[in-house]
Amino acid sequence: MSVVRSILIVLVVAFTTLGVAWADEPPVSEETQACLDCHESVSPGIVADWRNSRHSRTTPTQALTKPELERRMSATEVPEKMRTVVVGCYECHGLNTTRHKDSFKHKGQQINVVVSPNDCKTCHPVEANEFATSKKAHAVENLMGNPTYHQLVDSTVGMPHLGAQGPKVGSASEATLRKTCLGCHGSVVGVDGTRTIESDVGTVKVPHLTNWPNQGVGRVNPDGSRGACTACHSRHAFSIEMARQPYTCAQCHMGPDIPAWEVYKESKHGNIFSSMHAKWNFDAVPWKVGVDFTAPTCAACHASLVVSPDNEVIAKRTHDYGSRLWVRLFGLPYSHPQPKSGRTSIIRNADGQPLPTTLAGVPASKFLIDAKEQKKRRDAFSALCLACHSTDWTVSYFDHLDASIGETDKMVKMATDVMRLAWKKGVESPKNLFDGPIERMWVRAWLFYANSIRYASAMSGPDYATFEGGWWHLNENLQAMWDRLNLELRLRKR
Amino acid sequence: MSVVRSILIVLVVAFTTLGVAWADEPPVSEETQACLDCHESVSPGIVADWRNSRHSRTTPTQALTKPELERRMSATEVPEKMRTVVVGCYECHGLNTTRHKDSFKHKGQQINVVVSPNDCKTCHPVEANEFATSKKAHAVENLMGNPTYHQLVDSTVGMPHLGAQGPKVGSASEATLRKTCLGCHGSVVGVDGTRTIESDVGTVKVPHLTNWPNQGVGRVNPDGSRGACTACHSRHAFSIEMARQPYTCAQCHMGPDIPAWEVYKESKHGNIFSSMHAKWNFDAVPWKVGVDFTAPTCAACHASLVVSPDNEVIAKRTHDYGSRLWVRLFGLPYSHPQPKSGRTSIIRNADGQPLPTTLAGVPASKFLIDAKEQKKRRDAFSALCLACHSTDWTVSYFDHLDASIGETDKMVKMATDVMRLAWKKGVESPKNLFDGPIERMWVRAWLFYANSIRYASAMSGPDYATFEGGWWHLNENLQAMWDRLNLELRLRKR
Amino acid sequence: MSVVRSILIVLVVAFTTLGVAWADEPPVSEETQACLDCHESVSPGIVADWRNSRHSRTTPTQALTKPELERRMSATEVPEKMRTVVVGCYECHGLNTTRHKDSFKHKGQQINVVVSPNDCKTCHPVEANEFATSKKAHAVENLMGNPTYHQLVDSTVGMPHLGAQGPKVGSASEATLRKTCLGCHGSVVGVDGTRTIESDVGTVKVPHLTNWPNQGVGRVNPDGSRGACTACHSRHAFSIEMARQPYTCAQCHMGPDIPAWEVYKESKHGNIFSSMHAKWNFDAVPWKVGVDFTAPTCAACHASLVVSPDNEVIAKRTHDYGSRLWVRLFGLPYSHPQPKSGRTSIIRNADGQPLPTTLAGVPASKFLIDAKEQKKRRDAFSALCLACHSTDWTVSYFDHLDASIGETDKMVKMATDVMRLAWKKGVESPKNLFDGPIERMWVRAWLFYANSIRYASAMSGPDYATFEGGWWHLNENLQAMWDRLNLELRLRKR
Repeated sequence: MSVVRSILIVLVVAFTTLGVAWADEPPVSEETQACLDCHESVSPGIVADWRNSRHSRTTPTQALTKPELERRMSATEVPEKMRTVVVGCYECHGLNTTRHKDSFKHKGQQINVVVSPNDCKTCHPVEANEFATSKKAHAVENLMGNPTYHQLVDSTVGMPHLGAQGPKVGSASEATLRKTCLGCHGSVVGVDGTRTIESDVGTVKVPHLTNWPNQGVGRVNPDGSRGACTACHSRHAFSIEMARQPYTCAQCHMGPDIPAWEVYKESKHGNIFSSMHAKWNFDAVPWKVGVDFTAPTCAACHASLVVSPDNEVIAKRTHDYGSRLWVRLFGLPYSHPQPKSGRTSIIRNADGQPLPTTLAGVPASKFLIDAKEQKKRRDAFSALCLACHSTDWTVSYFDHLDASIGETDKMVKMATDVMRLAWKKGVESPKNLFDGPIERMWVRAWLFYANSIRYASAMSGPDYATFEGGWWHLNENLQAMWDRLNLELRLRKR
Repeated sequence: MSVVRSILIVLVVAFTTLGVAWADEPPVSEETQACLDCHESVSPGIVADWRNSRHSRTTPTQALTKPELERRMSATEVPEKMRTVVVGCYECHGLNTTRHKDSFKHKGQQINVVVSPNDCKTCHPVEANEFATSKKAHAVENLMGNPTYHQLVDSTVGMPHLGAQGPKVGSASEATLRKTCLGCHGSVVGVDGTRTIESDVGTVKVPHLTNWPNQGVGRVNPDGSRGACTACHSRHAFSIEMARQPYTCAQCHMGPDIPAWEVYKESKHGNIFSSMHAKWNFDAVPWKVGVDFTAPTCAACHASLVVSPDNEVIAKRTHDYGSRLWVRLFGLPYSHPQPKSGRTSIIRNADGQPLPTTLAGVPASKFLIDAKEQKKRRDAFSALCLACHSTDWTVSYFDHLDASIGETDKMVKMATDVMRLAWKKGVESPKNLFDGPIERMWVRAWLFYANSIRYASAMSGPDYATFEGGWWHLNENLQAMWDRLNLELRLRKR
Repeated sequence: MSVVRSILIVLVVAFTTLGVAWADEPPVSEETQACLDCHESVSPGIVADWRNSRHSRTTPTQALTKPELERRMSATEVPEKMRTVVVGCYECHGLNTTRHKDSFKHKGQQINVVVSPNDCKTCHPVEANEFATSKKAHAVENLMGNPTYHQLVDSTVGMPHLGAQGPKVGSASEATLRKTCLGCHGSVVGVDGTRTIESDVGTVKVPHLTNWPNQGVGRVNPDGSRGACTACHSRHAFSIEMARQPYTCAQCHMGPDIPAWEVYKESKHGNIFSSMHAKWNFDAVPWKVGVDFTAPTCAACHASLVVSPDNEVIAKRTHDYGSRLWVRLFGLPYSHPQPKSGRTSIIRNADGQPLPTTLAGVPASKFLIDAKEQKKRRDAFSALCLACHSTDWTVSYFDHLDASIGETDKMVKMATDVMRLAWKKGVESPKNLFDGPIERMWVRAWLFYANSIRYASAMSGPDYATFEGGWWHLNENLQAMWDRLNLELRLRKR
């Protein structure tokens, strides 16, 4: 038994240190040790999660000894104090404290409650900078700062007033916004005084945060920075392993408006992932196609550094997730080329509306990438496909996607034509575009059904293009829009 | 190579016996051995499943050698005959035979077909007693013994009669009930004579059970006891491992009326579970936060004995799953404080209806836990959150949940106001509350959409509060109720 | 502990490498080596996938040394050239080249782009022949060659024309068909000249395939054969492991029309699979109940060679997936006995329609298996159940299924009666059975809701029989059909 035990110890050590061999315990800063001394019992789950993390076992100096392709930090140097200790509580929560409205004196140390992308940037500047230019970083403003989208938000999650003429759209409450749209888009986190906490280790005063908790990817933080790295790299493990799992993206990219996750699951890629991923290596950097994984997850196509078994780079890592894409499948109300800037609230179409296309389908080209850039991105993206598919396969695949995009945009145009007739006849009012019975069907057409078909076409989930949110519904809904309009017109004639 | 292989064999053997080392085969009772001798070939899957189980490797005497916190049985002594043999076929199927209508003489032994919670109680009395007081144990009567709910059952799963005035609600058949509502709630299992079976080991007569098979959690058994432990601890492995997986709860807690599973999957907790649970230990007792698991499953928050890495108890084990909860999110038609008794069919609201609130939203407080008890439970529940979250985080989280509950209840009130107008105008009849076109929309409002939002708010699944069964539908549906009522009134005027 | 366990699993897998020990590298044919030399860099994912496969490590001669029950190939001899090399690129892509319209001279070798079931038949003739008689092999013609179904296809995924009288059904485009119906049913793949490809290894001309890419299970290949083995055995791993995972079947058997996957996931079997399958052996041949797996996946009941722990055969392997079934749950519009032939487009009902039942529910018995064959199959299927369930359990289970089938068929009859009234009154036209507002509700009744209930009943997914696509919707929809018809009749009267 003791022989077995010693073998086990050798194995455990060999495998859990992941190549990082400390003679003794990993070096923890004095400040972090002070945190751990209390929080080990006050918040044991956080500490245990961190102990499982790479952060708890690695110093920046060690991390920099790796060849560049294998490196997980993009800074080439970090503040001296941080170099030879592992990345512990204080190393993250003690950064840039003067910028943080949520900073407070805690047991003798200056601590921030919320760690922001600007803090993570200390070791991960390339990733933070890429992210900062993305649509995700601007997710709050892009939604709430766009008067048209804001009208849709209120029509969707606002509590209406019920009067003698039926329900009238009201404003969405802060609480509901946080549990709905801003659950993914992110909230604007502020600080409103302090809260007094009683615990085993005494009474403490902590900043009381408003619009908190929130892990929306575009969260505006108390230091003014935008984003929440923890939206994907869950605290306090911050693992690349988790971020590469499609379940992570599925936190937001699911549901009738954007069924990317559902489509992926149905797809051949999803089938291979679901069936075989227990044998994959989600932790390897760089990520080797066919060796570490045998079918792409969301990350492989949209974010990760992917290489061949011979370490030839197939795709560079990016944290601006839309930057590999040429077309934006998500119709508003039509699909369109990807926006040039992650800040989409600046877009105005030819009719002056803050939409990437007009209601007639004309793209706001000034704000969108041009044909050359589209081709460049499409070619680069195709390189990922070509790792496992032939050129003929790949080219035809995207040609079919183009056809699906074209047809769904035509279908949205038909729905919009019926809608315009309803507006013209005064059956519904375009003052609020989204609140009447026919208007809600129109929203379904472009927000739910056309999107479902496009995602299904892009990733091959035939049911999401057919009976599950797809063409069936698009056709049925168009008929229902017509039917409802026609009924109204007949009733009036009498 | 051969050295490595022999080490491996040693290791595999050492670890698969889970620390229980029998010099030889585990001690099996004579009676159980007789069962195995035939059933090994007659029902090989059952025997193989049992051989994988802890029951097949452990005697009660051994189980009692563990420290109390690690113990999986709550009895401190068991009948002498059972003490030093493993828990085999006969040890369970041979208990309390005189109480069992499904007991029969089989190959010289008295055997019950159905093992009931009262039988499991022999070794697990604390769990059986907790369960016996729960809503789950009364799930059949709570549904079928409540005339209002029964009306909803018939309107939902009953086969209607199609007459000259359209469909009229009929009674649901026994067969359909078992495949629908009672699939989860449980059936009342009876015995109706015997069935003669021909098999390789000869002809046998066995009791013919009625309303069987069924594994609904509130099943009424042939010994008069209530419940099916196998609803969660699947036979014949009866593993705690499986009961702790959210897939187990998802057997029933899913779908538009109670999308707990769907919401969990979308949540951050669900994301961590899905991405990382291959590395968790679902078998450990007690269950260590941050060590055995890094995000809660259903069991962690609602049932399991959860401890810190230092074995400090964070939550005691309970098999009365509602007992940790203060509010009942599931609206009938409004959310309300948890019922005092698991037997909810006794509840009467101020209007005399068997509902926990009136249609106007007044709670039947006499039957519901009071504010003090609510606070006590909320504080206890918060201790689980605090293992990984700060106090400010946790308090704000539940404050936002309160806001969601309040708003959805107001929305249900608006839908009910439209409904009442329809009843008042004679557009539909309140004789059956659930069968007219507008009534069915009203049911959707409180049973599907408001519930979806509340679960989504409680566990953070933003899409289930927004487009996937949530606010979008609640608003659209309210408009549609109004629209349909209004149409009828306009048609009448002409 | 769990870390240790996963290490152990890794090691065990590493050392037991499937029993095939090559002193050196496995023997690869010259031709295959030539493929690998370029494609290792040109399509690294494909090569890496193949390297992980059994094909890359096994020669047919070795495969034939196994006892028959353990054999994965059904040919008893193969062409001499193939016997002592592993199954590499050329061994599959170089077969039967004269039959292949997609064959081309490539770097000195004659290569087919698409490997077809007729090619796989070289080593797997029993499987290929079984498959060739199945409904799956005829999936394209069964759908597209049936004028009634084709009308449904156009009404569902066709782009309509919007005229002054509202939307009129148009023809579905080729591109959309491939992304919808034919994504699962399969496309007819042709060859249209060549495409010139520029790559690192020079310029090559390759056949340009039409209706490609496609992995639909009934695909018609450029060699005239039907089917795509890769629909389930994903290229280039072709693993039995993946084919046995329910995720594979779920690529197509999901969604509102055929929610087999959703129902399975909710079921007790699905619960056990989801919770425990990390411990199963999906690779073993034969597949041992209770040892290799503890609950059936789709494959166990519908396809795999299943044996007891003592190697007694419980079910023989089949690649004609419907051949174990007696009833066809999938209503068209009513459930009916399984068709005699996999080519269902030949069926004509008593009214001359190409449907397995009349609209009044009379089965086209001449084309369907008779009562004797039904009983035979039901008995054989029951043997699978009996591995883990008692006879009383099993018999009652299928009796309840019969009841569900009977009730849902009655419900479909009611919906059809309302539909016929609408046709008779001229409210809608039966010229196209599927395009009017009431007709679309009628399709929902039999295609979505009745099917959902039957699958839910067959595999025990209570929510799919109740609120999630089940009885709730069937009743609500019948009421809505009536309501819409009645509204029209009232409007006319005025």
